[in-house]
Amino acid sequence: MRIKVINPNTTPAMTDLIGYAARAVAGVGTEILAVNPSMGPASIESHYDEALAVPGLLQEITDGENASLSGGVDGYVIACFGDPGLDAARELAAGPVVGIAEAAMHAAVMLGRSFAVVTTLSRTIGRAEDLVAHYGFADRCVSVSACDVAVLDLDDDRSGASLLVEQLARTAIERDRADSIVLGCAGMTSFCERLTDRLGVPVIDGVAAATGMVEALVRMRLRTSTRDEFASPLPKRYDGELASFSLRA
Amino acid sequence: MRIKVINPNTTPAMTDLIGYAARAVAGVGTEILAVNPSMGPASIESHYDEALAVPGLLQEITDGENASLSGGVDGYVIACFGDPGLDAARELAAGPVVGIAEAAMHAAVMLGRSFAVVTTLSRTIGRAEDLVAHYGFADRCVSVSACDVAVLDLDDDRSGASLLVEQLARTAIERDRADSIVLGCAGMTSFCERLTDRLGVPVIDGVAAATGMVEALVRMRLRTSTRDEFASPLPKRYDGELASFSLRA
Amino acid sequence: MRIKVINPNTTPAMTDLIGYAARAVAGVGTEILAVNPSMGPASIESHYDEALAVPGLLQEITDGENASLSGGVDGYVIACFGDPGLDAARELAAGPVVGIAEAAMHAAVMLGRSFAVVTTLSRTIGRAEDLVAHYGFADRCVSVSACDVAVLDLDDDRSGASLLVEQLARTAIERDRADSIVLGCAGMTSFCERLTDRLGVPVIDGVAAATGMVEALVRMRLRTSTRDEFASPLPKRYDGELASFSLRA
Amino acid sequence: MRIKVINPNTTPAMTDLIGYAARAVAGVGTEILAVNPSMGPASIESHYDEALAVPGLLQEITDGENASLSGGVDGYVIACFGDPGLDAARELAAGPVVGIAEAAMHAAVMLGRSFAVVTTLSRTIGRAEDLVAHYGFADRCVSVSACDVAVLDLDDDRSGASLLVEQLARTAIERDRADSIVLGCAGMTSFCERLTDRLGVPVIDGVAAATGMVEALVRMRLRTSTRDEFASPLPKRYDGELASFSLRA
Amino acid sequence: MRIKVINPNTTPAMTDLIGYAARAVAGVGTEILAVNPSMGPASIESHYDEALAVPGLLQEITDGENASLSGGVDGYVIACFGDPGLDAARELAAGPVVGIAEAAMHAAVMLGRSFAVVTTLSRTIGRAEDLVAHYGFADRCVSVSACDVAVLDLDDDRSGASLLVEQLARTAIERDRADSIVLGCAGMTSFCERLTDRLGVPVIDGVAAATGMVEALVRMRLRTSTRDEFASPLPKRYDGELASFSLRA
Amino acid sequence: MRIKVINPNTTPAMTDLIGYAARAVAGVGTEILAVNPSMGPASIESHYDEALAVPGLLQEITDGENASLSGGVDGYVIACFGDPGLDAARELAAGPVVGIAEAAMHAAVMLGRSFAVVTTLSRTIGRAEDLVAHYGFADRCVSVSACDVAVLDLDDDRSGASLLVEQLARTAIERDRADSIVLGCAGMTSFCERLTDRLGVPVIDGVAAATGMVEALVRMRLRTSTRDEFASPLPKRYDGELASFSLRA
Repeated sequence: MRIKVINPNTTPAMTDLIGYAARAVAGVGTEILAVNPSMGPASIESHYDEALAVPGLLQEITDGENASLSGGVDGYVIACFGDPGLDAARELAAGPVVGIAEAAMHAAVMLGRSFAVVTTLSRTIGRAEDLVAHYGFADRCVSVSACDVAVLDLDDDRSGASLLVEQLARTAIERDRADSIVLGCAGMTSFCERLTDRLGVPVIDGVAAATGMVEALVRMRLRTSTRDEFASPLPKRYDGELASFSLRA
Repeated sequence: MRIKVINPNTTPAMTDLIGYAARAVAGVGTEILAVNPSMGPASIESHYDEALAVPGLLQEITDGENASLSGGVDGYVIACFGDPGLDAARELAAGPVVGIAEAAMHAAVMLGRSFAVVTTLSRTIGRAEDLVAHYGFADRCVSVSACDVAVLDLDDDRSGASLLVEQLARTAIERDRADSIVLGCAGMTSFCERLTDRLGVPVIDGVAAATGMVEALVRMRLRTSTRDEFASPLPKRYDGELASFSLRA
Repeated sequence: MRIKVINPNTTPAMTDLIGYAARAVAGVGTEILAVNPSMGPASIESHYDEALAVPGLLQEITDGENASLSGGVDGYVIACFGDPGLDAARELAAGPVVGIAEAAMHAAVMLGRSFAVVTTLSRTIGRAEDLVAHYGFADRCVSVSACDVAVLDLDDDRSGASLLVEQLARTAIERDRADSIVLGCAGMTSFCERLTDRLGVPVIDGVAAATGMVEALVRMRLRTSTRDEFASPLPKRYDGELASFSLRA
Repeated sequence: MRIKVINPNTTPAMTDLIGYAARAVAGVGTEILAVNPSMGPASIESHYDEALAVPGLLQEITDGENASLSGGVDGYVIACFGDPGLDAARELAAGPVVGIAEAAMHAAVMLGRSFAVVTTLSRTIGRAEDLVAHYGFADRCVSVSACDVAVLDLDDDRSGASLLVEQLARTAIERDRADSIVLGCAGMTSFCERLTDRLGVPVIDGVAAATGMVEALVRMRLRTSTRDEFASPLPKRYDGELASFSLRA
Repeated sequence: MRIKVINPNTTPAMTDLIGYAARAVAGVGTEILAVNPSMGPASIESHYDEALAVPGLLQEITDGENASLSGGVDGYVIACFGDPGLDAARELAAGPVVGIAEAAMHAAVMLGRSFAVVTTLSRTIGRAEDLVAHYGFADRCVSVSACDVAVLDLDDDRSGASLLVEQLARTAIERDRADSIVLGCAGMTSFCERLTDRLGVPVIDGVAAATGMVEALVRMRLRTSTRDEFASPLPKRYDGELASFSLRA
Repeated sequence: MRIKVINPNTTPAMTDLIGYAARAVAGVGTEILAVNPSMGPASIESHYDEALAVPGLLQEITDGENASLSGGVDGYVIACFGDPGLDAARELAAGPVVGIAEAAMHAAVMLGRSFAVVTTLSRTIGRAEDLVAHYGFADRCVSVSACDVAVLDLDDDRSGASLLVEQLARTAIERDRADSIVLGCAGMTSFCERLTDRLGVPVIDGVAAATGMVEALVRMRLRTSTRDEFASPLPKRYDGELASFSLRA
């Protein structure tokens, strides 16, 4: 099967890391396409960034659906912890679409009672809390904390992000009684192994989790329901700079 | 004061209706600017449409904020019942921003115990339910029903939309014990007066409600908190077709 | 329009402050009648006080409704943070009735994700929490704290109430991540401007908020639903000291 | 022990029925004082009635507390399904105070998964729903329905109330899967035995349930917490017709 | 009446304590049978222990139901704070069955707004939280804390358990604003009186509370609903070591 | 990897069906061990059955953990829709343990907004609702309905179970707006393919879903948190018929 993993920001270095994490858990015979759109923000750290990452993301979904000649895409991962554009993506794609925030949380609640999210900037805590509540896990998430390192600096050793995340995770485990830690950014995927070793509790990278969930859903031959809400969007004219998003009947 | 009422789709006829409804409730000395973006969908009837209406909407907010030379904008109304882009708009605007769905629901719960939403296409019921839950009114909203008339046909007498909405409202009042009716689309604003007369319960048009709320907030000198989450988005490079959305420091 | 703002305790000095706050936000052409009943407690600081403030409050509503010869009352504000007698008042009044607790919370959630309440005596925290839950804002209210200054001492500089409230507000902002502060007593209305300047987040006075909400509802021609629960109470005999509350058919 | 059962309306015939129901379940050595206030509404069928029943009720509590010379009161039952004045009564009484709505619901959830409430006028359904939610049983209460017979007509055979309640109960059992039926008015206490025989599921009269709960609490030597919220109300001046409610230090 | 109080572990010394606590609150004419099964764990401190305590507990219920010749059992108490096997026991017993966790919580919420649970090992906190949520009291329970003394050491003065529990209770009262303390283990029943004296708030022992609740339910002639879910289990073959649990038609 | 799929009843024919369903979705290199215990009920249709299925289930987990010489077990599926013994099993197993109810629900919410459960006997609806709430999906599950065919008759063509389930599913889709159908019994696994074809929405078999989830978790190297609650149970003496469950230090 072929899974398209979409990094919704425009930074290829991050796309590479994400692709690596997805491939590490993919089963035999699963091909991972890791991509990012050419339009939109370099990183996603505000509601504004997130909203404007969605057009590029949807373009990637549409491209994936049109790729049937070259083998087609069986399912998609949205590799940003805000799960941007998830509902719209589900309208477009025939196969399953899974966001890394939802996947990580689903995995967490099967591994213990409680989890904590450690994320990047404190201004994104609210969005994480919205998702926790929306997915039904408000009783299970004991805290959301932020290391206040920008997304594109996570990787830079000078930011000290890995250590900061470890400290926040320890606090969540000891003070908040978190049974596991959910990494709150696709850019933290490379911290997962080291943190797992050091913390002694499950540390969950959403990229891996979403890849695993999509694989399982595809193998079960399950796809998004087209009953009503998630049926294909209606044909419609789009204007101006977004005219290329018009849908024909 | 000056309130900018943004219809997030690209259909000027609907913008005119919305402007009319806002002006009808505005107080002495309040100027209503009713606009729509030039880019995006002709109407909003799916998650896809809604996501792609947001860039144009945010452009209108940014334009409003840059308009200070000509007097400035004191507050904004987002005139689509999905409240698209509301969080992002709040990051951009200095003054208050209110969505018509939230405003209508806030008004409804001050007029009785329960309300029902009557909306356009059944595929949008889920989005309305999401908003109801997100705003905290899940215990107060007794039903969401859909007349299955497309947004741009509401106005066309041949659609029979007004009568269909009235029938759904009656069912909600009698079967679901709704104390009031919330109109689930900015395009239904012109039904409000007639339905009020015929139904005998409050019928709430979100455009009017949001205009009233923004006016009240401005008069109280209240504006969106800039503590953290809703502070201005960080300066950032945007790429491709969306490069014009880049923010400079 | 004419809005009757009812301070449900019997202390005229507090009524004066409340009237001042309401007039400061009222629009052009809105007349504010600030009153208090002649029967009941001098201040409201327990469930007992609150229960016994209601008869006087309801008398004021009934008087307002009977005032139609002299111009009538278009809407009412209940100016005590416990929102005492709100449901009963809605049964009596033709126009909208808004409590200052509900109004302040409605305003707060349109200005950010979270708010905190700072109130007077710690024994009233429970009532504030009840209201938060009842209005649907349990997920948005991050804390309720008390300065433990009696209501009638708030105004007395020797109580230090203003400073204590400021300290509690700072804690709520920094520790609890409150986006805004809701003042938990009508007697704190005079602190609002100074706190706004010093705290850098929205500080919401319920008297102003409720006045604004009533004005907006009246301008929208919305009134309490009379479908069933909030229809006029049935004619009934009242006995003993409360015989004057009897309702005739 | 001595339990004072207070019917908060002023109708002695109903007080007699309530006293009978309480005595039927009281243990050996428990004395039941069934009383009603001399001031207030003849029956309670609106928020207005309920609010104005509270002063008389509180007077009865205060009288009970002052009765220590003649043996004292160990606990109180508030025998109206709206549980009026319950929080205020708890501030005044040394011993436990239990409302019949809460007691009936507590009993119901120990006898099955779900219960349904059958009450008098449909305009009181909202109050019952408020109590269900406030007590934490929203997930357990499958329906609240109303026979639309006035409280003081329940007893009159011509009203057909008993049969109407039975029909509503059957619907709740069959359609809503109610495991038990909670009688939603103290005036239905005399229906309990017959309905139990006919329906085949537990039928719960709150007067009996509250009497049993108070007895159990007294025997456990438990009384309302005086930590903070439910400590005695502060000394305070009351004005006007309610001056007799003043509390001295 | 006769109430069978079942300690679901196999330690007779604990059964004796439990019987003593039940008898202390039972009314005149109520006989308490305090028993424990012969099979299962010596104490219950994990999900594993709790699951394996249930067969012995159910055997005791079945024996109670078969005891009709010698007078019969009118109701049952399950005297372990995890309320193990409660739903299954309700299927078997004709009379009411009450768990000590549910009973203690029901009592607590009639004595104040909030309660805190103090329990034994921290690994059982999760189970207590599950019960709190399941019974509908998540908004009322302000904390669950653990003294980390093993169940069978509670009684041993050298464990210092009584003092540790007192300290945790003080923290819950002062920091978490708990109006009352719920003892989170049947083995703490002997601490109740001393803690009540020292803490100044209600301290609730579930054994006493459940005994009182069963007595009240029996006196009201209420028994578990047999409508559907809690009807007698269907006749069925059981295999292997559990063959004796087979049910015949 | 090796996944042990445990049917917790003692009916081998059902174990065979379950094994078949698990193997159908397992990836390359995954071995499925499908087993059932030798002790316990022939089928699970009551709380009593479920409680007594747990000892045999836990024995199978312990055996799996002791099997390390012969290659070991990497993860477990509990193949009964009540998810019996799940928490206890997680204490015993080193690798992940997933119940078929939780897995099916997790899958369902990634495929649409809403799902409905169709189960066997109506007396089990309550348990399904408990699980829905416990897992956080109360807002997503629109109905639970029962075909009232016994578990061991599902397979018998004369029961008509397949058709009854299809009818209930259609009602859930049309009346309750279910986006997908969750099969509420491991014995319905063979209906999945046919129902998928006929209904046009996703139909989710928990056995397949749980197998996929365990596989994904194992591939991510995630296992149950051993922080506190789910650490190995403490060494302890077990008495009587259950003495073999004793745990040594």
